[in-house]
Amino acid sequence: MQNERIDQLYSQNIKIIQSPDVFSFSLDAVLLADFANVVKSARGKIVDLCAGNGAVGLFISTKTQAHIDMIELQPRLADMARRSVALNHLTNQIAVHTLDLADTFNVIPKDSIDSITCNPPYFTDLDTSKKNPNPYLAIARHEIKTNFATVARIASGLLKYNGKLFLVHRPERLSELLATLTHYHLTPKVMRFIFPRVNKEANMVLIEAIKAGKPGGLRVLPDLVVYEGNHYTKEVQALLGQG
Amino acid sequence: MQNERIDQLYSQNIKIIQSPDVFSFSLDAVLLADFANVVKSARGKIVDLCAGNGAVGLFISTKTQAHIDMIELQPRLADMARRSVALNHLTNQIAVHTLDLADTFNVIPKDSIDSITCNPPYFTDLDTSKKNPNPYLAIARHEIKTNFATVARIASGLLKYNGKLFLVHRPERLSELLATLTHYHLTPKVMRFIFPRVNKEANMVLIEAIKAGKPGGLRVLPDLVVYEGNHYTKEVQALLGQG
Repeated sequence: MQNERIDQLYSQNIKIIQSPDVFSFSLDAVLLADFANVVKSARGKIVDLCAGNGAVGLFISTKTQAHIDMIELQPRLADMARRSVALNHLTNQIAVHTLDLADTFNVIPKDSIDSITCNPPYFTDLDTSKKNPNPYLAIARHEIKTNFATVARIASGLLKYNGKLFLVHRPERLSELLATLTHYHLTPKVMRFIFPRVNKEANMVLIEAIKAGKPGGLRVLPDLVVYEGNHYTKEVQALLGQG
Repeated sequence: MQNERIDQLYSQNIKIIQSPDVFSFSLDAVLLADFANVVKSARGKIVDLCAGNGAVGLFISTKTQAHIDMIELQPRLADMARRSVALNHLTNQIAVHTLDLADTFNVIPKDSIDSITCNPPYFTDLDTSKKNPNPYLAIARHEIKTNFATVARIASGLLKYNGKLFLVHRPERLSELLATLTHYHLTPKVMRFIFPRVNKEANMVLIEAIKAGKPGGLRVLPDLVVYEGNHYTKEVQALLGQG
């Protein structure tokens, strides 16, 4: 389609159809895919919510034999994800559903999933004036079509007991994120903060939550720092295959 | 008294009466005192809850003209704090109350305090078998005589609107801490995680919460790392006056 390109994540040898007009995967997807300790077995089941152009699911396909269902509301993005899946010869492992995540139980049974990944819209939908004028990007970034409570409710419903949700979000909403997860019986167990640079404040947080996990015992992993001077740090270079 | 010693925090020129039998201030107190951006004015009012031997209040006295009330349940510790206050010629600035913090409103009016510091017991009181056999230390470290909900309730009651609570705690309880603070109208606004070493998991967290603050907007500051090899890092050395 017009104004699309195919990008390659070299370290994982995955090709991804991108378009700056509608959506490009960002570092967030790479970091989430790296953080997500998903089920490995071919009998396992993984769901990627808010899948966008499929970056997270495509990346994690390199480290699991499990089946992956992607859920994406926007037809244009779901179509890109579907074509990327075909381009990578992964149609046996990955299915893309063009679907509002609130309707996920129509296609995927409750209590059936081992691992969920989600890179949801980060920003609340309060200030319409600041929304991205591009509607594709606005929906991907702002809670216009869904919100975090819905994400948590659906994730909790999909997961088996002791199944795991892995998500990336913004630290400024951390109190709400942890409270909402807890409310939906998803016990936060691991966090990792992402700092753009040493001595800057964190701008992303990775969270692992376990369905019906025992309260407490939250672990905070060592930081990930993204830039050093004008370059990615070694850890990020390695994730991007630029090491 | 027997088996006491006087320690000096060199960078702040504060002398503190300590005893390994009952309580010694730890790095936690130094980090909390550094983190706490307390009111500076002589008209300001500060309360230190769970004051122990008074380390936090003594340290912050070096950076504020405000009056400081210390609340400590254990008479032996409150007595040490009181003698340290006298030793440092701070009786005009600091008062020590031997008091269960649940009774704080008997001596300090509600809605009257600008800044509160608190280094509370970290551990829940579930497993009696693991409790410290020394009762002074057990009470200081375990939620035997108080618990975090009580700390948050009292702190919220004491603070003026937009007054600030600064506390140090354990990251493994972070979900509960943030939820409890939020429940008592103390909005978490700043966090800083303490890592014992690079590439280890965090073992402390500093939290600033604002009474009746707007939800969201939580900032996660750059880490503090304590050790490098066999030595304190430069930042910690500077706090301890060993730089």
